[in-house]
Amino acid sequence: MSNQLNQLRQQLQFAIDNKTKPPGSLGLLETIALQAGLIQQSLRPSVQDPQIVVFAGDHGIAKTGLVNPFPQEVTAQMVMNFLRGGAAINVFTRLHNIGLTVVDAGVNNENWDELFVSDHFINAKIARGTANYLESDAISESAVVAAIEAGRSIITNLALQGCNTIGFGEMGIGNTSSAALIMSAITGIPVVDCVGRGTGVNDDQLKVKIETLQKVFQFHKLELYSKNPISLLGKVGGYEIAMMTGAFLAAAEHHMIIVVDGFITTAALLLAQQMEPGVKDYCLFAHTSQEQGHEAMLRYLDAQPILHLSMRLGEGTGAALAIPLIRSAVAFLNEMASFDTAGVSNSTESTTSRPKA
Amino acid sequence: MSNQLNQLRQQLQFAIDNKTKPPGSLGLLETIALQAGLIQQSLRPSVQDPQIVVFAGDHGIAKTGLVNPFPQEVTAQMVMNFLRGGAAINVFTRLHNIGLTVVDAGVNNENWDELFVSDHFINAKIARGTANYLESDAISESAVVAAIEAGRSIITNLALQGCNTIGFGEMGIGNTSSAALIMSAITGIPVVDCVGRGTGVNDDQLKVKIETLQKVFQFHKLELYSKNPISLLGKVGGYEIAMMTGAFLAAAEHHMIIVVDGFITTAALLLAQQMEPGVKDYCLFAHTSQEQGHEAMLRYLDAQPILHLSMRLGEGTGAALAIPLIRSAVAFLNEMASFDTAGVSNSTESTTSRPKA
Repeated sequence: MSNQLNQLRQQLQFAIDNKTKPPGSLGLLETIALQAGLIQQSLRPSVQDPQIVVFAGDHGIAKTGLVNPFPQEVTAQMVMNFLRGGAAINVFTRLHNIGLTVVDAGVNNENWDELFVSDHFINAKIARGTANYLESDAISESAVVAAIEAGRSIITNLALQGCNTIGFGEMGIGNTSSAALIMSAITGIPVVDCVGRGTGVNDDQLKVKIETLQKVFQFHKLELYSKNPISLLGKVGGYEIAMMTGAFLAAAEHHMIIVVDGFITTAALLLAQQMEPGVKDYCLFAHTSQEQGHEAMLRYLDAQPILHLSMRLGEGTGAALAIPLIRSAVAFLNEMASFDTAGVSNSTESTTSRPKA
Repeated sequence: MSNQLNQLRQQLQFAIDNKTKPPGSLGLLETIALQAGLIQQSLRPSVQDPQIVVFAGDHGIAKTGLVNPFPQEVTAQMVMNFLRGGAAINVFTRLHNIGLTVVDAGVNNENWDELFVSDHFINAKIARGTANYLESDAISESAVVAAIEAGRSIITNLALQGCNTIGFGEMGIGNTSSAALIMSAITGIPVVDCVGRGTGVNDDQLKVKIETLQKVFQFHKLELYSKNPISLLGKVGGYEIAMMTGAFLAAAEHHMIIVVDGFITTAALLLAQQMEPGVKDYCLFAHTSQEQGHEAMLRYLDAQPILHLSMRLGEGTGAALAIPLIRSAVAFLNEMASFDTAGVSNSTESTTSRPKA
């Protein structure tokens, strides 16, 4: 760490410790306040115009019915639900004053009902779903690059409009399978431990899902692509995952606070982190998803999630629910009185000392 | 459970399962939505005018310095900090649109600076702190009863003004000691496992704190008072704890959603629960405090806390931070589209069925 950043860290810690509370008593909120200050390189970090961007895309594998209990059409139906305002992410972003943008990254439908299309919808469709990776590569490498660039550009636009805190969500029937394969390839954790129930497969379906994905892993020799994120996205990725990868890269470049959602979003972070190892420094981890594999991903990233609500919905819902807590962390740092200003006696045993100038 | 309540439960569960999401995928938020509906006996529960009430009181033991690193004056200083708006609970209630009332239950000071006294301050002082329970009972039984009645009346007034969701907080140097003794007497868990670091005693101070409280436990023969909450409050209680006990009773009577904060508040719930075993049905548990003993208390109550932030500040801060999540739970139940209305296909394997009429 540079001397300058080290000095900022000491100053932030001093400010946190001198608020009118026992040192450390705000727990994880203190860690979040510190990290927000470091991300924004400021003693007074802020959460400005927070946004959730939901990327939607379809997966060829979903047509086989081998990995998913819901039919592929649900991806497009749920995008319409987002546009009409009836999904969980709509409810949570409205309630907590968070902006919401929905991106068609690669949904398998012909066109969108124009009545519901708004400023908050971006049609960045690259193709009508990926190819079935049981038979071929899911995406061509040029399309992977195009998707990454599209994700980058969407986030850069939001940053230029004043958003400094961002979370990504996704919708795509079959995308827990893609995420599990990416996770296994990058972390070296066996496929069986990366595959979970997704939207809710039963025991028999889970067995088929695991066997199918083990076959895919072997077919594409994914162990060879552990350090090659673009090729890995081409083999078994999804358009929404590729766009999120680009979105992470742009968000870090713009020094945004990135609120990482669940299993699929974290898989995109694994890819972005390989392309640019500093990305993780900008990330707060919203929650541990109940999707098997997410906890192992978080351990791999040495990440401490904020919420533990046994959720597994995606859409960025975990990120949306964590934002009020991130706002709380930033607010205590900016607004609480210090022992000096409030005239409150500190403990008889001083546990903090002034940072060196 | 009555037939009527059972039917309401089935109807709520059916509504929750038919929202446009995989069944169960909102995890703990689904449990909260269900409980909120049962508390308010409504298919459309709400969070109206939520309030945090902070009860402050002093403890005779604190003058000995045997259990606390902060001096007793800090209680009054922190109440002034609350009235000026500079404490953590002020920041969190302002940020999340939660009302805040501060109650002097028994602070050891002469008078309050009138400049800062407002509608949000209630002077219900019963005495200038409790007596030192190393030497005598802390509070007379008539004063215990008066405090319980005062707590009841404060909450009843808020309920009559339209508040349907309430959290209690406390401030009182030395009150983790009182809470630990109450916990040990009621649960039968040895004192040593109920005593924690409070505002932050070091290892040597913790040893003295434990030895002191073991002595107090023996001196008052607290094992005899495990089923006698009023006498127990008289022996080793605090005015703020007694008022919170009454506050819990009134909140349950008024069918309020009660958001239970940390260690000391939960000790008051243990007392209220003995006086009226149905109280717990109205409680949502905001968080696990880092104060040793709180986790065991929650296990004793079979409670599932919402947040795990390693906090240990008191003031109702955990409750305030949980309220945005409770609002989120109620909002998804009221506002999300169902599979039918959104035209979204349900999973091929239906996991829900209509409740019997």
